[in-house]
Amino acid sequence: MIPIDFGADRARVARALETLVTRCLDGRGGAVYDAIRYSLTGEGKRLRAVLVLSAYRAAGGTGDVSDLAAAVEVVHAYSLVHDDLPCMDDDAMRRGRPTVHVVHGVAAATAAGMAMVPLAARAAADAALALGLDAEESSTIVRELMRASGAGGMIGGQLLDLEGEGRSLSLEELERVHRLKTGALIEASMALGGLAARAPAPLLEAFRRYGAAIGLAFQIADDVLDITATTDQLGKTAGKDVEYRKSTYPALLGVAGAKARAEALVQEACAGLQGQGALTPELEFLARFVVARRS
Amino acid sequence: MIPIDFGADRARVARALETLVTRCLDGRGGAVYDAIRYSLTGEGKRLRAVLVLSAYRAAGGTGDVSDLAAAVEVVHAYSLVHDDLPCMDDDAMRRGRPTVHVVHGVAAATAAGMAMVPLAARAAADAALALGLDAEESSTIVRELMRASGAGGMIGGQLLDLEGEGRSLSLEELERVHRLKTGALIEASMALGGLAARAPAPLLEAFRRYGAAIGLAFQIADDVLDITATTDQLGKTAGKDVEYRKSTYPALLGVAGAKARAEALVQEACAGLQGQGALTPELEFLARFVVARRS
Repeated sequence: MIPIDFGADRARVARALETLVTRCLDGRGGAVYDAIRYSLTGEGKRLRAVLVLSAYRAAGGTGDVSDLAAAVEVVHAYSLVHDDLPCMDDDAMRRGRPTVHVVHGVAAATAAGMAMVPLAARAAADAALALGLDAEESSTIVRELMRASGAGGMIGGQLLDLEGEGRSLSLEELERVHRLKTGALIEASMALGGLAARAPAPLLEAFRRYGAAIGLAFQIADDVLDITATTDQLGKTAGKDVEYRKSTYPALLGVAGAKARAEALVQEACAGLQGQGALTPELEFLARFVVARRS
Repeated sequence: MIPIDFGADRARVARALETLVTRCLDGRGGAVYDAIRYSLTGEGKRLRAVLVLSAYRAAGGTGDVSDLAAAVEVVHAYSLVHDDLPCMDDDAMRRGRPTVHVVHGVAAATAAGMAMVPLAARAAADAALALGLDAEESSTIVRELMRASGAGGMIGGQLLDLEGEGRSLSLEELERVHRLKTGALIEASMALGGLAARAPAPLLEAFRRYGAAIGLAFQIADDVLDITATTDQLGKTAGKDVEYRKSTYPALLGVAGAKARAEALVQEACAGLQGQGALTPELEFLARFVVARRS
């Protein structure tokens, strides 16, 4: 596998995030704005954004969807801000920097997170408009991103996760948590790239399946890394799952079993795209990356 | 002033909320869905929804904007759910019923609130589409609602409010809190009604000013009611502002002074609409209602 460098994509998304913050914050100052800006900058992998761009290109899109990709990153960043709060995972480090509430305070971090969902919705609506999509297509794009962000996606997963704390989940329950909490937004990233390129329904469906599969593989890899990697490598605190006795894939399947399950999901994701003639080198690389990454 | 009964409007909005919940929740069950459903039903004044409908009619709209009005109520309901949480105002009663977290638990209530912003965004996008608006108009509608919900509106006001707790605010600071926390969504309700009817820019501007003025008057009336009304009359706990030593209009201006300020704002709101030939009996009644109400 030849590694693909998404540096140019990540730089474009970083610029799109800068523009989005500057435009949408209407030039206002204050703690909540500083917290939003802080959470959207820094060294993320930008996996979700890169998936939007790669799916768009795989569906034949030739325009610039970095604004739409940035909207997805806003939702993701919001979930990290709230996950790190003292009342949730209580984490002080993220992406190698102090977390938002450590720098800007808990009230500002909480409010910033709350403000980032409307920010993402505005950004997605603007991006759809700039791409020249019609009212129905734009509405579908906003709906897709918001569904992944809401009770049927990220929030639903977070609640299941909270409900499951302190007891052992079955493999089935754990998969359900992760499919919602992590998988929904990764699946939506693929769907959004496809929708922006007006992909036909069967291709969109293959994109969704790919996204759902690598989303779950990503979370399994996360669970494995929490055990096998160091805090320095991760840029966030390692070993928290064991400390909090959280149900994880390695706990249920062993490290080797968890890795094998992730590998099978990657195969499944790639095979589905191949069936649609849409397994570009980028999407193949990204599927392998989510399980092979070191942080 | 002849009282106007918005019973038919409120019934239509209640039905729109039911449909929205049923459609957007994709038939899923669980605590967070129950909490969302609970928060969207019950006996609200539905002031914001009625403003959307009245502004739409005042601008000559003849269609049905109750779905759009329902989207605004979702944002408002979310703000109430979170305001009532133990970590915020810690209130056990709202609209004459136990609050969401009392019935469904704090975790579900928190998650429900988080899920209601994406729900509102989806609903607004769908409503714009159903009204036959084009991509730019739809995008403007989503953007309007989301701006009012975010850091430049409700959340920004909530943060200022939290920051101001425990110290005395000046009249200017207090007004800024309320213009964001309460005013932004009431202003947006008027703007959304206007946008849905494709109102020309000067009328939209008059709608906004009317919304901002009665929004502030509404909050002043709220402060006065917290002192003068009983818990039974309000359907929520009375006297909390004094208990929490919150800065309020009556504290700064006295009850009579606060009432006079609210009255002046109502005059200002009505005069602005009259200048545009848009002071319908409905909008005149609503402006007077926000200060004359008993709960």
